[in-house]
Amino acid sequence: MSDLRAGLRPEALAAPPSGIVEVMNYGRDRAGLIPLWAGEGDLATPRFVCDAATRSLAAGETFYTWQRGIPDLRAALARNAERLYGRPAAPERFFVTGSGMQAIQIAATALVGAGDEVLVPTPSWPNVPAAIALRGARVVEIPMTFAPSGWTLDLDRLAAAVGPTTRAIFLNTPCNPTGWTATREELAAILAIARRSGLWIVADEVYGRFVFDGSPRAPSFHDVAEPDDRIVWVDTFSKNWAMTGWRVGWIEAPPELGDVIENLVQYSTSGVAVFLQRGAVAALDHGEGFLAHQLARIGESRRLLIAALGAEPRVRFAEPGGGFYLFFAVDGEPDTARLGLRLVDEANVGLAPGTAFGTAGAGFLRLCFARSPDSIAEAAARIVAWLAEPSRVP
Amino acid sequence: MSDLRAGLRPEALAAPPSGIVEVMNYGRDRAGLIPLWAGEGDLATPRFVCDAATRSLAAGETFYTWQRGIPDLRAALARNAERLYGRPAAPERFFVTGSGMQAIQIAATALVGAGDEVLVPTPSWPNVPAAIALRGARVVEIPMTFAPSGWTLDLDRLAAAVGPTTRAIFLNTPCNPTGWTATREELAAILAIARRSGLWIVADEVYGRFVFDGSPRAPSFHDVAEPDDRIVWVDTFSKNWAMTGWRVGWIEAPPELGDVIENLVQYSTSGVAVFLQRGAVAALDHGEGFLAHQLARIGESRRLLIAALGAEPRVRFAEPGGGFYLFFAVDGEPDTARLGLRLVDEANVGLAPGTAFGTAGAGFLRLCFARSPDSIAEAAARIVAWLAEPSRVP
Repeated sequence: MSDLRAGLRPEALAAPPSGIVEVMNYGRDRAGLIPLWAGEGDLATPRFVCDAATRSLAAGETFYTWQRGIPDLRAALARNAERLYGRPAAPERFFVTGSGMQAIQIAATALVGAGDEVLVPTPSWPNVPAAIALRGARVVEIPMTFAPSGWTLDLDRLAAAVGPTTRAIFLNTPCNPTGWTATREELAAILAIARRSGLWIVADEVYGRFVFDGSPRAPSFHDVAEPDDRIVWVDTFSKNWAMTGWRVGWIEAPPELGDVIENLVQYSTSGVAVFLQRGAVAALDHGEGFLAHQLARIGESRRLLIAALGAEPRVRFAEPGGGFYLFFAVDGEPDTARLGLRLVDEANVGLAPGTAFGTAGAGFLRLCFARSPDSIAEAAARIVAWLAEPSRVP
Repeated sequence: MSDLRAGLRPEALAAPPSGIVEVMNYGRDRAGLIPLWAGEGDLATPRFVCDAATRSLAAGETFYTWQRGIPDLRAALARNAERLYGRPAAPERFFVTGSGMQAIQIAATALVGAGDEVLVPTPSWPNVPAAIALRGARVVEIPMTFAPSGWTLDLDRLAAAVGPTTRAIFLNTPCNPTGWTATREELAAILAIARRSGLWIVADEVYGRFVFDGSPRAPSFHDVAEPDDRIVWVDTFSKNWAMTGWRVGWIEAPPELGDVIENLVQYSTSGVAVFLQRGAVAALDHGEGFLAHQLARIGESRRLLIAALGAEPRVRFAEPGGGFYLFFAVDGEPDTARLGLRLVDEANVGLAPGTAFGTAGAGFLRLCFARSPDSIAEAAARIVAWLAEPSRVP
């Protein structure tokens, strides 16, 4: 290690590279590659959202603003929550952040630090344990169990993992990468565990709108919690409205936490551009049509993909209850970190290796199907053809 | 303290509210108030910068991007550094961040943590010690000395403060709030202190272009350092190009730190919107004219202000060598936290109380003169009239 690197903090040096970014960097410039590694679709942000931002920029809204977010956006977030969850929601519960990732970072900073433990069901999105570890807290993985009928979170195992230094449970449902979607009963049971020990829940329900059984959303902690429960929701505009590149998200939390969240925004990025927030207001107030269009398209991609890979005897997966990922294993291919790179070279398809998502994900690959049915059908065909090559058959 | 707040981490609870925001919230909606409390001017972002962002947005550049920043912007930052400092600069040294504040947060996370000390000359911008404290490190204030001829940093005092757990010196020059501007010799001496003990320097030269003696920039650590010195520069687009609301900044650091900085970006905000970065490229490549216009305007405001307040026997200040703040004291008014609020009520002028800038700033007020000469002349006249009211004369 160079002298310069030796001078850095151990937590910072220990922050792992994202296993997703590794394969992206490997395959970024391959001609004709179908990139299904990241958690984003192929649609640009809809025009009406961009137009709202452009109008604001042209009007000179380029100055510092409220650390908690502009009042219009906080009010729009409250209206959105009322529509979705059928309960009253006050704007004072909502805080605008510079991405869902920053919402997680701020929640972690507010809640955990050295000496604390956080329970994280895995497989999980790698940025969550990384953000917790950067606060000096310890991540306790609660491995979920795979079966073709579905992934399972063992609630007894979760409850048994609560110890004297446990401070929080991080729960992502629908889950990235597995598609596991907690039932209302499971959420009530998890909340009961948290209440019993005074734990915080960080609720990541970012994929809550991406369900394909006709219901308007997945079950939510909003269905079972009281306003003063120790729950912090972390959310983003990225997925519902194709705004991954914008870096705008939000926190929902009890208003009593308001000044602490405001200070943590102040001392990290000091707010979000007003003109980006105007786009976010447009997305919330006028975005249901676009979301329905996305859902129809992604639903069809999902159907094609499950049909194609489901017919392959060497491929194992559970149909995802929500979200837009297929998390699958290939018999005879346990080394998915290498397999991800090989599929770039050998099938011209970019997938994320399951190793990026914790030990429970090691034998799997994550495929994002939030793209056109044609490109997902083509990607599935490439994977099927790759499996059929005689040299690959075990 | 409510049960909910009792569940938060002590570092997060201890993060102080910004003393600047406090007075802003107090006076935000006063009719006719001249707001000189924040570190921003009255000009909106120039058109050519907004247009570059708007074109990018219209072209659909709304997807995830490089964590280190788009290559075009890193190359433009390198060109800018070469022009300014007259030395070769590689794009690999530059990392785009979601504000200068985030650059500071990332530098703090990379360099310091629990058990570490950081030396910070004060008065200083309050967000710096707050960001350091949020990492669990201890801020050691090095109080500077005021005299009408100028503020002084006692280099012997700085050297004597270095102890076994000292990890870094945070140096802001030209200084917000005092306007103190280190000479090349002072910078060489500070670098020698850091080298002797293996300390990092976090160099905040954000106001380096705001000098009014005809020179193109203030002295910089670039003038005295080698490329592999332990220096991390934190910088922003906010001031030079009136982009405070955009939340885009950058870090310059030895390339050996690249993967660590990339990971810290990944696990905090996961990058900066491409369309914002396109605006930043335009600012760097075509922004000298706008900067010259700003400098002429602010220079005139500075001249008027110094003439007006310099004529007041009860007002004491050192002429700022750089930056766009006047940091002044009023004889007989030591309680500037209250004075800031009173001036909102009694003079319709918004200033930041010196208490926000550390103990060494307690008796002072900060006035931002980055506004039109007319409004600064009017603000000065209001302060002079306020001083002249018989009830105020001691």
